[in-house]
Amino acid sequence: MKYYDFGLAPNPRRVNFFINEKGLEIDTVEINLRTGDQFSEAFLKVNPQATVPCLELDDGTVLLETMAICRYLEAVHPTPCLFGSQALDIARIEQWSRRAEMEGFLPVADALRNGEPRFANRAVPGPQDYAQIPALAERGKPRCQAFFAVLDKQLAGREFVASEFFSAADINAYITVEFAARVGVKPDATMANLLRWYKAVGERPSVRALPAPP
Amino acid sequence: MKYYDFGLAPNPRRVNFFINEKGLEIDTVEINLRTGDQFSEAFLKVNPQATVPCLELDDGTVLLETMAICRYLEAVHPTPCLFGSQALDIARIEQWSRRAEMEGFLPVADALRNGEPRFANRAVPGPQDYAQIPALAERGKPRCQAFFAVLDKQLAGREFVASEFFSAADINAYITVEFAARVGVKPDATMANLLRWYKAVGERPSVRALPAPP
Repeated sequence: MKYYDFGLAPNPRRVNFFINEKGLEIDTVEINLRTGDQFSEAFLKVNPQATVPCLELDDGTVLLETMAICRYLEAVHPTPCLFGSQALDIARIEQWSRRAEMEGFLPVADALRNGEPRFANRAVPGPQDYAQIPALAERGKPRCQAFFAVLDKQLAGREFVASEFFSAADINAYITVEFAARVGVKPDATMANLLRWYKAVGERPSVRALPAPP
Repeated sequence: MKYYDFGLAPNPRRVNFFINEKGLEIDTVEINLRTGDQFSEAFLKVNPQATVPCLELDDGTVLLETMAICRYLEAVHPTPCLFGSQALDIARIEQWSRRAEMEGFLPVADALRNGEPRFANRAVPGPQDYAQIPALAERGKPRCQAFFAVLDKQLAGREFVASEFFSAADINAYITVEFAARVGVKPDATMANLLRWYKAVGERPSVRALPAPP
């Protein structure tokens, strides 16, 4: 198994966090997205989508997509269980993972990729070029802020986002909050539940083992 | 269990398709999104996000998010298995479900909600209002078209999108193709694999039981 990574980017960070929680050691190749390694001939043979993370299995199968890679790792290394094993946990973990992604992570990605000069003409990841849309960069920020309010409310009286145990939903929500700082969106000082949870998760050894975020 | 539905909208259609494949009968309440039922006081008590689909369990728990509802139903009614039971199937079904959604479904939703006059100021689903961004409506169409090319290639020599059996990935991809027609994006006549698969899936009793798409 070979894992293609870039530890500064938020999608690989979700997988890295997951791998650390599972306590796995996987052969890793760094694809530096800032110097364009993802467009090298060698890497495009592995993944024509030119994205990381991706996971190459020993038979040559290549898995794309953050949560697909995590679900593969969960299936082959079930402990600790991060996607749930009971119906209600499974559903709630998926629900909060998706809400973190759809209402938080993707709006932040919109803000970053449509706003920062270094993503000019690269507003969407992948092999096609798309021009930036400044209005979309602006819309991403209040959307993420609205999600933080939802998350703060959800965390009232709770240790973890979706279940009684640490799960993939905490990973998705944590990396969303971390990522949002890159476009200047931070939880309000009044969001005591969110801030308490974010601090506690940040002290986990799995997070401390990640490279510092950019 | 009570299911809140609107059979013309693409997110509920994914769940309806899934329910039909499982052969389930679930108490259903129609929330007409076109007449604003989602903002009624009664429905906002069930789901403050003002979205369908949602699933209310007998103990009052409300599950949101299309794929979270489907995963709940899979856990309580495991047969036929639509998310996979072996590691590689689980990963591939998630990978192709996500690619259909991220590269196809969401770009189509961008095109529709940022382009059609009836979504003025409602460019994002949920309780907040956001102005339309015409440039985003335009960007959604070529992105979806690019995904159709990827899907056509994936379907070469294959009966189903992600696995040797019909799965949630076929549901996500099928509803994406159906939805794309609403913004005028259709598979190219040269995409023989995609067109063959789309026709075959459309003949399943689970699809024939859906209301005609708008």
